[in-house]
Amino acid sequence: MNEARRRELLAIYRDGLLHNTLPFWLSHAVDQKHGGIITAVDRDGTIVDTDKGVWQQGRFAWLLGELFNQVEPRGEWLEIAQKTVAFLNQHGFDPTDGRMWFHLTREGRPIRKRRYAFSEAFAAIAYGELAQATGNDQLAAQARQLFLRFVQHKPEPKFTDVRPTREIGVPMITINIAQQLRDSIQLPEANAWIDRGIEAIRRYHVHDDIACILETVGADGQRLDHFDGRTLNPGHAIEGAWFIIREGQYRNDAELIQLGCRMLDWMWQRGWDQQHGGILYFIDVDGRPIQEYWHDMKFWWPQNETIIATLLAHAVTGDPKYEAWHREIHDWAYRHFADAEHGEWFGYLHRDGSLSSTLKGNLWKGPFHLPRMQLTCWQILESLFPTEE
Amino acid sequence: MNEARRRELLAIYRDGLLHNTLPFWLSHAVDQKHGGIITAVDRDGTIVDTDKGVWQQGRFAWLLGELFNQVEPRGEWLEIAQKTVAFLNQHGFDPTDGRMWFHLTREGRPIRKRRYAFSEAFAAIAYGELAQATGNDQLAAQARQLFLRFVQHKPEPKFTDVRPTREIGVPMITINIAQQLRDSIQLPEANAWIDRGIEAIRRYHVHDDIACILETVGADGQRLDHFDGRTLNPGHAIEGAWFIIREGQYRNDAELIQLGCRMLDWMWQRGWDQQHGGILYFIDVDGRPIQEYWHDMKFWWPQNETIIATLLAHAVTGDPKYEAWHREIHDWAYRHFADAEHGEWFGYLHRDGSLSSTLKGNLWKGPFHLPRMQLTCWQILESLFPTEE
Repeated sequence: MNEARRRELLAIYRDGLLHNTLPFWLSHAVDQKHGGIITAVDRDGTIVDTDKGVWQQGRFAWLLGELFNQVEPRGEWLEIAQKTVAFLNQHGFDPTDGRMWFHLTREGRPIRKRRYAFSEAFAAIAYGELAQATGNDQLAAQARQLFLRFVQHKPEPKFTDVRPTREIGVPMITINIAQQLRDSIQLPEANAWIDRGIEAIRRYHVHDDIACILETVGADGQRLDHFDGRTLNPGHAIEGAWFIIREGQYRNDAELIQLGCRMLDWMWQRGWDQQHGGILYFIDVDGRPIQEYWHDMKFWWPQNETIIATLLAHAVTGDPKYEAWHREIHDWAYRHFADAEHGEWFGYLHRDGSLSSTLKGNLWKGPFHLPRMQLTCWQILESLFPTEE
Repeated sequence: MNEARRRELLAIYRDGLLHNTLPFWLSHAVDQKHGGIITAVDRDGTIVDTDKGVWQQGRFAWLLGELFNQVEPRGEWLEIAQKTVAFLNQHGFDPTDGRMWFHLTREGRPIRKRRYAFSEAFAAIAYGELAQATGNDQLAAQARQLFLRFVQHKPEPKFTDVRPTREIGVPMITINIAQQLRDSIQLPEANAWIDRGIEAIRRYHVHDDIACILETVGADGQRLDHFDGRTLNPGHAIEGAWFIIREGQYRNDAELIQLGCRMLDWMWQRGWDQQHGGILYFIDVDGRPIQEYWHDMKFWWPQNETIIATLLAHAVTGDPKYEAWHREIHDWAYRHFADAEHGEWFGYLHRDGSLSSTLKGNLWKGPFHLPRMQLTCWQILESLFPTEE
């Protein structure tokens, strides 16, 4: 990547984060009264539902804490992160079993708990950043406890035991959460859990014979010739790919970097929409029809994750293929998702890039994938590319 | 409606049912080995997933039984319906609690049970038709027992009790299942349950002040200013409308007919896509963005239900508005959903009518809404319109 392009991209990501994405959420979505963030906002920031997603509280506090720790110790960021964690401490946990809720009212009354413990995972990294920012040991202990609850959680089964399955989501998120907590609180178990996560993906989900990452497999990693087993989620696999490339780069482990790049290569080939551009949401491993209705839509986050993965792969390997892919996905995504009028990105487009919804957030979309992409790509461009200076 | 149009439509529905829809399923989807039907088929009838939905087993056996009882006592129809009910008897029930499963393997091993008891509802009408066809009292008793299990079922809560809600689905399906069982087995409780279903819809879901049928309301019918409470499902409300118009016609009750027509009027106004045609899947009561990703897609069944509702409303009231609406939805749906090459209808289109998926069936789509529309409209055209003879 030449220096002009590096500087151009760096400005896009850094300034986009600090002067566009972050102000969008800070000015429209922070709940001054109860703490935390209300993410269900329309394109201009108008709140359309006051309910609060617990994932988004953790993710937002993580982002502000990470910015405080990595970018600049701004008091405003720390204060809002602390109020968000205080809201979680007060309302995020079900006292009857200690588990976290998924969906709360604005005031913090519980609406829904889910089978999985991703609320705990995203809270863990928030508590971890605040522990680092403040030196508070109790927050660090809470972060570790939340992490262990996440990785040790056995979800209530949705299905009988007739056809047991494995999903890539849990090992993948485990890797990322452990990486974050290794940085923020020097989590002692981090490397062991990262190893386990990578091993689970390699053993069960990486299928060399068909050059594919399978999202859902049988208990021993076998292919399941049913809708669920054939449905690929390329953006998800590519997100996992960059977690592994980053681990390879951190450990200086060429084999891990190769694994992550192989995952990226395969899923780019399958997931990139040759006709319209962008990463498709779901595709069938054999090209058969998909059961999920939104299979051919373009969501914001698979594009965010692919922008990170291609830039990181280029930085780490120097392979010009990844620079070309990065340019393709970056340009397509910014052209279609970025809202020039009100800032931030739209979340939901049709296959051809036309708008499906004006929502900027809901229980699933909030200040996470886009600002994480902006921050991560800024950091990659600053630290991993040789400069002329 | 003039006689030429009546005859033209009658041929489309009758011949479509007998020479297109029914042969599609009978030739591709009947499981000769294990009994029942495999509905996950691609556009040419190729099976893409061998798993079986329990809803679809009941609906298919109901259809064949209804055809046997109403159209012609063909031995083939009865035999396949009986094999399907035998499959349900053998594999459809969880012996530990007596409840029905939702999703089975081809051989009948259980994969999933759901919170709601719609499997029981659709099985009830299947057993009812077979009881009528064979005079078997035990089947009639089973049909009644399944109906009572459905209406008395208290689903496990998905949410806490902080914001209790009511959905229109249960009272609506109750009306239709009770109507079917009144015809097939003279269910003694039918009228009482139909009254309760209509009363629940009228009291909680019909909101005159905003001319709207709300899909999800608070426990006392109040509007909930959150995504769920604002999300309208016009096809569903229109399906409920024709169940009520039919009841009004059966009872010769002008007030019920007016109620159903009002529901149809309001939800046609809200759900008909002025830009592309067809009935939209979800719309927001206030025109705000919807959380469900497929909100602006066109599914087959809202079109089927609207074709029935508009034709029935025209037959019962003589209002030419309904004939015009029927022509609009009939023409749009046949132009976009019917598969001229392989028969049956596609299930999932984008908003503009372009194809999203080639699937002809899955756990949710099978031989039900389309053939029920064809049969019901055929019957309406034969019995409810004055002819020149």
